[in-house]
Amino acid sequence: MERKIIEKIEEIISKDRIFTDTADLYAYGFDASIHHATPDIVIRPKDAEEVEKVVKIANEYRIPIIARGSGTALCGQAVPIYGGIILDMTGMNKIKEIRVEDLYCVVEPGVVYAKLNEALAKYGFFFPPTPGSGDVCTIGGMLAVNASGMRAIKYGATRDYVLGMEIVFPYGRVRFGGKTLKNSSGYQIERLIVGSEGTLGIITEATLRIAPLPQKRAVALASFDDVIDAGKGVAEIIGKGVLPSALEIMDRVCIQAVNRAMGIGLPDAEAILLIEVDGNEKEVKENIEKIAKILKEKASKIEFTDDEQEMLKLWKGRKGVLPSLSRYGENMVSVSLADDMCLPISKIPYAIKEFQKIAKKYGIIIGTYGHAGDGNLHTKVLIDPTKEENWRNAEKAVDEIYKVVYQLNGIASGEHGIGITKAPWMNGDLSTMEKIKKAIDPNNIMNPGKMMQWKKGIIAYLRYPVKNEEKRFRTVT
Amino acid sequence: MERKIIEKIEEIISKDRIFTDTADLYAYGFDASIHHATPDIVIRPKDAEEVEKVVKIANEYRIPIIARGSGTALCGQAVPIYGGIILDMTGMNKIKEIRVEDLYCVVEPGVVYAKLNEALAKYGFFFPPTPGSGDVCTIGGMLAVNASGMRAIKYGATRDYVLGMEIVFPYGRVRFGGKTLKNSSGYQIERLIVGSEGTLGIITEATLRIAPLPQKRAVALASFDDVIDAGKGVAEIIGKGVLPSALEIMDRVCIQAVNRAMGIGLPDAEAILLIEVDGNEKEVKENIEKIAKILKEKASKIEFTDDEQEMLKLWKGRKGVLPSLSRYGENMVSVSLADDMCLPISKIPYAIKEFQKIAKKYGIIIGTYGHAGDGNLHTKVLIDPTKEENWRNAEKAVDEIYKVVYQLNGIASGEHGIGITKAPWMNGDLSTMEKIKKAIDPNNIMNPGKMMQWKKGIIAYLRYPVKNEEKRFRTVT
Repeated sequence: MERKIIEKIEEIISKDRIFTDTADLYAYGFDASIHHATPDIVIRPKDAEEVEKVVKIANEYRIPIIARGSGTALCGQAVPIYGGIILDMTGMNKIKEIRVEDLYCVVEPGVVYAKLNEALAKYGFFFPPTPGSGDVCTIGGMLAVNASGMRAIKYGATRDYVLGMEIVFPYGRVRFGGKTLKNSSGYQIERLIVGSEGTLGIITEATLRIAPLPQKRAVALASFDDVIDAGKGVAEIIGKGVLPSALEIMDRVCIQAVNRAMGIGLPDAEAILLIEVDGNEKEVKENIEKIAKILKEKASKIEFTDDEQEMLKLWKGRKGVLPSLSRYGENMVSVSLADDMCLPISKIPYAIKEFQKIAKKYGIIIGTYGHAGDGNLHTKVLIDPTKEENWRNAEKAVDEIYKVVYQLNGIASGEHGIGITKAPWMNGDLSTMEKIKKAIDPNNIMNPGKMMQWKKGIIAYLRYPVKNEEKRFRTVT
Repeated sequence: MERKIIEKIEEIISKDRIFTDTADLYAYGFDASIHHATPDIVIRPKDAEEVEKVVKIANEYRIPIIARGSGTALCGQAVPIYGGIILDMTGMNKIKEIRVEDLYCVVEPGVVYAKLNEALAKYGFFFPPTPGSGDVCTIGGMLAVNASGMRAIKYGATRDYVLGMEIVFPYGRVRFGGKTLKNSSGYQIERLIVGSEGTLGIITEATLRIAPLPQKRAVALASFDDVIDAGKGVAEIIGKGVLPSALEIMDRVCIQAVNRAMGIGLPDAEAILLIEVDGNEKEVKENIEKIAKILKEKASKIEFTDDEQEMLKLWKGRKGVLPSLSRYGENMVSVSLADDMCLPISKIPYAIKEFQKIAKKYGIIIGTYGHAGDGNLHTKVLIDPTKEENWRNAEKAVDEIYKVVYQLNGIASGEHGIGITKAPWMNGDLSTMEKIKKAIDPNNIMNPGKMMQWKKGIIAYLRYPVKNEEKRFRTVT
C-alpha cells in the first residue's frame, strides 16, 4: 500500500490502532474457513466517524475494505483475497441502549453475542438467534451473514430482529429504519444489508428487537436405527403443530466423533434427535408428551430431561460435533465445504441418505448434523488437507451434494452465508444482486470478489500447505 | 394510449380481460385513499407469463404500470397518477401448495387473505399478519406494503413470513429465495420487494411461512380516565415479559364513534385497552392474571372474557372504528392522512396527548386508535372534504403530528405504507432507495411518482370534489 495512503489513514486513526507488521497482517488473513489471504493494513476504528473517514479514503483510492468481527465466518467472508484494508470492528463494542418496555436494544457491531445476552438476561430478555459460535462471535458478523442457530425454528434468524441500522456506504454514512417494531416506511434497506457479507457497506450500529426469556425448558433425546425414521419424526412433529425451540439431528459419524473426542456417551445409533421445547411448565409438559407420542413407533429409544446440568451436557455434545470431527481420524481435518445447505424440513432424511452415498463413492468421510427443525443441514468433509487429490475429490463430492440439494428444493446456505466457499453453487437470480451492488458500490471496494462476484472454484487461497501445489492454490489464475 | 400499443396487448391478453371503457377506467382509479386518477387501460392477467409480456411492452414504450389487488391501500399506492396500465391481479388467485410439515404455502398474489386462512385452518395452521382489511385484501397487496395488524406484536408483519418470491422486473421474470425457513444465500431481494409498493416489480408468486393456530384465546377490556395511564399499562405489560397476541388502544373520540354508529356499548372512558392473549389454557390464564395485576392500579375498570361471541363483539367494535368515524358528524368524512405512525411502545400515550392538542389548535376532530402493543397508531382526521380550507388546516395539523412523531423516535408508517399521502413526511435516507430504484427500473415504469419520488403535498389528485378547486387539486403543477 502506498505510503501516502497510510499517512492519510494515520491522520484519522491513532497509531496504536493501526497494524502493518507482517505477523499481524498474516494473523488477520484468516477466518474459520479453509481460505487465507493477507491484507495490506489492519485498522481498529473506535467509532462511526472513523469508519466513515477510512471508507472515504478507500473509495477515493479504490482500495478493498473488509469489516471483521471475531473471524468465525466459515466461508471466507472476512478473508481479504485482494488485499486492502481490514477493519477490526471489535473495538466498537458498546451496548448503547436496552429498552425492554419497547422491546429493543441498540448495539455497536463489535458487541459479542453472549455479552449482549448476559446484559439482557438481567431484565428477563434475550436476543434469540443462537449461533454455534455465540460465545465469541460479534453482532456485526451475525448481521453480515444473517446468522442463526438451533433456535431459529421457533425464534427466526438475525434478519428477523433488525429494526434499524447505521451503515457507512462508499457515498457516506446513513441511517435506516428506527426503534419501532414494525416498519412500512419505504424500502427496508437495513434488512437487505443483513446477509450482504460486507459487499455493500460497513454496519456501525444496529437496533435489534429482543424477546422475553422462556420460563422453562426441557429436552428429549431420541435414538433411531434409520435416519429416515428420524426425519419422518421431525416432519410429523412440525406438521402436528408442535414448535420446538430446538430440533437437532446427528448422524452416526457425528455421534461417534463426539463420543470419541468428548466421552459424552451419546447413544450408539444411526441417528439421534435432540429436541428442546420451551415456554411455561404446562406448555413444556404438553409438548414433551406430544413428541413422545409421535416418536414412540419410530425411535428405538427416547429419554427426557429438564435437569439443567443434563441439558447442558447434551448441548455440549451437540456443539462439540465440529471440533470433534477434526479428531475423528489420523491426519484428518474437517473442512467446511458444502456445510450449510437448507432444505424443506421433510426432505432432510433423503438428503442425508444421499450424502452418505456420495461420501462412499468418493472414499471420503462426511459427517452430517444440524438444525433438522428448520431444514438446515451441516456436513463436514473429513480429509487430509495436504493432498491435492483429496481436495479434487471433495470438490466433486460437493458438486454432487448440491445437485441433490437443488433436486430437493434446497438452497446454498441457511445461516453461514456464501463468501467464497459456496459461491460456485449459488442458485437463483444473481443479476439483481449485481445491479444493486453496482448502484451502491460502483468502485467495488466493499469486500470485493465475494458471493456473486466469485467466479472460480473453492480450491483457491487455501490456508493449508498442499504438497507442491501451494502456489497454484494460493493464487487465482 | 396509442392504438398500436393496445393492439400489441390484445395479442397477449384475451379481450374479455382488457378494459378501456370510461366507466371501468374511472372505477379502477380509486383505492381506499383520498386520491383518484384514471388509468389508460386495465388488464386482468391470468398467469405470470402474461404479466411478463405486458411488462415487456410497458418497458419498451415507457408506459407506467401498476399492479392492484382489492384496492384497500390507504395512501394512494394503487392510484395511477400518471395514467398507464393497471394490472388487476385478482384473477391470479390460486393457492398452489400447502405443506404444513414444511411450514410453508405457495400462493399467487390475488389470493384473498381470509381465503388463505380458511384453507390453512383445515390443517390447524394460519398466516398470522392480520390486516384490518383481511376479509377482502389480497396477499399481493399485503406484500406490496408489508401489511400487518393487531397480531404483529407477537407474530410480526408480512415481511417476516416471506421465504421466496417470483417477480417480474422490467428486465424479466426472476425467482428469489426458496421453500426453506432460513436463508443466507445472498441478498434476500424478496424481503426488499416487500414494502416497495410496486415501484420495483410485479409479484407473481410468493412462498410464505405459516404458523400453528393457538389452542385458546382470551381478551381483557380495560378502561382508563387518562390515556397516559393506559399507555403506561401497555409499556409495563411488555416490560414484564408478557407478549399478548393483540394489544389495542382506542381514545374517547373512537369509543364514542363506535358506540354511536354500532351501539356496541363500549365503556365511556378517556381510553380503553383491548388485550388478547393466546396459547394453551395455562399460558392464557397466567397471562390474564399478570395483566390484571399490572393494570389494577391504573385502570378504572377491567373485564375479562374467553367467550367466542363476546370476543367477536369486542373485535367488531375495534374494527368498526374506521367506518364509524365517518358517521361521527354531519357532512364529516374521516380521511387517512397521518394515519399510521409507528413509535416506540412507551411513547404512545405522549403522542396521543399531543395529537389531541393539535386537533384542538386547528379546530378539527382527530380520532386516535391502533396497535399500542407494537407502537402503531392510527389517527383519522374528520373534516368536510368539500372545503379547501379544511384540507389546508388538515395538512398543517399533519405536519405538526409528524414533528411530534419524529421527536418521539417514531417513523412515517407502520403497516399502511407511503404511497402519496405519507411521502412528504418520509424520514431517513432516501438516496439509497433512489439508487436501487434506478438500478432495477431505469425507465421508471413501475408505479412511478410514489414514495421517494413524490415531491409535492398531499392535496393532489383528490377524490373529493372540492368547491371551485377541483381542477387545481386534480392536477400536479
